[in-house]
Amino acid sequence: MDFYTFSENTLRKFTHNVFIKMGCSEEHATLAADVLIKADLRGTDSHGVARLTGYVRLWEKGRINTKPNIKIIHETATTATVDGDAGLGLVVAPFAMDLAIKKAKEYGSGWVAVKNSNHFGIAGYHSLKAVENDMIGYALTNASPLVAPTFSTERMLGTNPICYAFPAGKHAPVVVDMATSTAANGKLEIAQRQGKNVPEGWIQDKDGHVALNPADLKNGGSLLPLGSDPEHGSHKGFALSATVDILSAVLSGASYGPWAPPFVAFMDPLPNQPGEGLGHFLGAMRVDGFRPIEDFKANMDNWIERFKNAKPINENQKVIIPGEPELAAEKYRTINGIPLIDAVVHDLNEIAVKMGLEKLGV
Amino acid sequence: MDFYTFSENTLRKFTHNVFIKMGCSEEHATLAADVLIKADLRGTDSHGVARLTGYVRLWEKGRINTKPNIKIIHETATTATVDGDAGLGLVVAPFAMDLAIKKAKEYGSGWVAVKNSNHFGIAGYHSLKAVENDMIGYALTNASPLVAPTFSTERMLGTNPICYAFPAGKHAPVVVDMATSTAANGKLEIAQRQGKNVPEGWIQDKDGHVALNPADLKNGGSLLPLGSDPEHGSHKGFALSATVDILSAVLSGASYGPWAPPFVAFMDPLPNQPGEGLGHFLGAMRVDGFRPIEDFKANMDNWIERFKNAKPINENQKVIIPGEPELAAEKYRTINGIPLIDAVVHDLNEIAVKMGLEKLGV
Repeated sequence: MDFYTFSENTLRKFTHNVFIKMGCSEEHATLAADVLIKADLRGTDSHGVARLTGYVRLWEKGRINTKPNIKIIHETATTATVDGDAGLGLVVAPFAMDLAIKKAKEYGSGWVAVKNSNHFGIAGYHSLKAVENDMIGYALTNASPLVAPTFSTERMLGTNPICYAFPAGKHAPVVVDMATSTAANGKLEIAQRQGKNVPEGWIQDKDGHVALNPADLKNGGSLLPLGSDPEHGSHKGFALSATVDILSAVLSGASYGPWAPPFVAFMDPLPNQPGEGLGHFLGAMRVDGFRPIEDFKANMDNWIERFKNAKPINENQKVIIPGEPELAAEKYRTINGIPLIDAVVHDLNEIAVKMGLEKLGV
Repeated sequence: MDFYTFSENTLRKFTHNVFIKMGCSEEHATLAADVLIKADLRGTDSHGVARLTGYVRLWEKGRINTKPNIKIIHETATTATVDGDAGLGLVVAPFAMDLAIKKAKEYGSGWVAVKNSNHFGIAGYHSLKAVENDMIGYALTNASPLVAPTFSTERMLGTNPICYAFPAGKHAPVVVDMATSTAANGKLEIAQRQGKNVPEGWIQDKDGHVALNPADLKNGGSLLPLGSDPEHGSHKGFALSATVDILSAVLSGASYGPWAPPFVAFMDPLPNQPGEGLGHFLGAMRVDGFRPIEDFKANMDNWIERFKNAKPINENQKVIIPGEPELAAEKYRTINGIPLIDAVVHDLNEIAVKMGLEKLGV
């Protein structure tokens, strides 16, 4: 497996041009590219430009509308439901988060459920928009079914992420951005490419038995909820994933549970959909709706310092504050560029040829 | 270990009388008893009348104020911070949830952070108040430090529960009410009483090594965050627990992290407290702030039925919907009474004698 490294701007321009070719407006292409590039910068390679071919294939299948009429279909002072009109989640979710922030400015908090959307990239992108406004950000989405509830063999839930972002003072924001499964699907893909087994507790086979071979996942197996097994609290991981599914999809009128439309274009959504598209849930709360922002930030700094300096098990591994590794990646890659594996570069260049765009030089 | 079974009303009256002897008003004694009895009815024995002696000892130490002046100290249309005046969390949290519901009625949602409080009983009690109003309920609290962050040996966090409650139609509400540690402390206490080892992944010893003997927890060890170890996502359990700590305590001005005041009266709070008392975070969102309540409830019923009927691994164990076991316990115990172990009955009767109350007859 070889890596090629590209500057942020090269990939940003390439991605923007692909979205333009798909029929996005200039504004939407710029925004969608920004969300994908942010994932690559922050080290979440599985959610960056590596996914661009996936969006293109969904668009080719007619499952993504690149000229969506995104609209508010239900509203109170601090709540709303948005219909994404089958648009890219990469532009629908920012619309919804902007609305949540607007409501929070006026009333203290804002909460927006979204239906009829698609994959929204990294949840952290959306929550961090709230942080820029001295607010606490919240972002959830349901996703392609891959995870089995405790005691079942059926793929009923996505890796349904939970994301909270909290402003701090002199320190970087605390950003919790986690799949509610034990392992992210990307880790399975890496193991499979490398021909390696995965640890016990990540997946089960089609009959619900312990599985170590990542191929078992593709053969009807499933990812396990955080906790892995009942003795270690997998019912809690299931409950968290269920919470994400209900807030994102049942509350908005999107398709929930096993009906969540798959991201891969070669799989059709199940028949008899109970809702429309994927669902998200975005929220923003003004910190100064609770206490002066300076007091909160000072306490956050103290919180971060105290946790960072908690007595370590091994002197060479301190406690990791949520969001810290992503920020380190962002600082490094902004300067040193974004590494892509050859398979991803190959896919992107296939798109380029098909769309009549300049290929990425390697 | 023997069990004695008491009717709900016997325990309710006993508990009420103890709170009256502590100096609570009639209204507060009735409410506090209701929260504790609800825990026993729902099968969360560790949070019911078994804790009554703990509250009494904290009161004897002067750490609980039974005549609190609970007040709103900061407010916007949909957010507020409440100072619990060192009152029982059992009465402070309902005050805060009522405020959240009031704001949600007017503006769609309401969010209340609480400082200067004490243990608030089961989180589900508070979230279910929102459900009674066709709202989604949210309840968090920080707690006595028992859990170590990933890579640390220090007890920095409580078992910090997360609770969401969702109304349904013909089915019972979905109630997610979970500690963010792999195992609840109550399970450790049971294992220790029975002289049994616990599964790998529940606790570590004082040096951060794998431990199986529950005595290691008391000897400077700690509970592990949901996920148990880094390979199985313990950084996610830590991040969730951190989220609860920040929303409950940093946002409200309560004492966070290792400074959270211990529930046991024989341990004094750490010096140089960064805030006041324990913190909670309560929220309510009107379902019809997002879509008509009937549509939501119909989809929730469908969600519950679909998950309940997901293909099981073993035919004799279906998927458990969050909240289902607690509801089954509540139905059974409302009719058949609440079983208490002899040690708890003994403790309660010691209080009765000391306070000049009638003992529980066994």
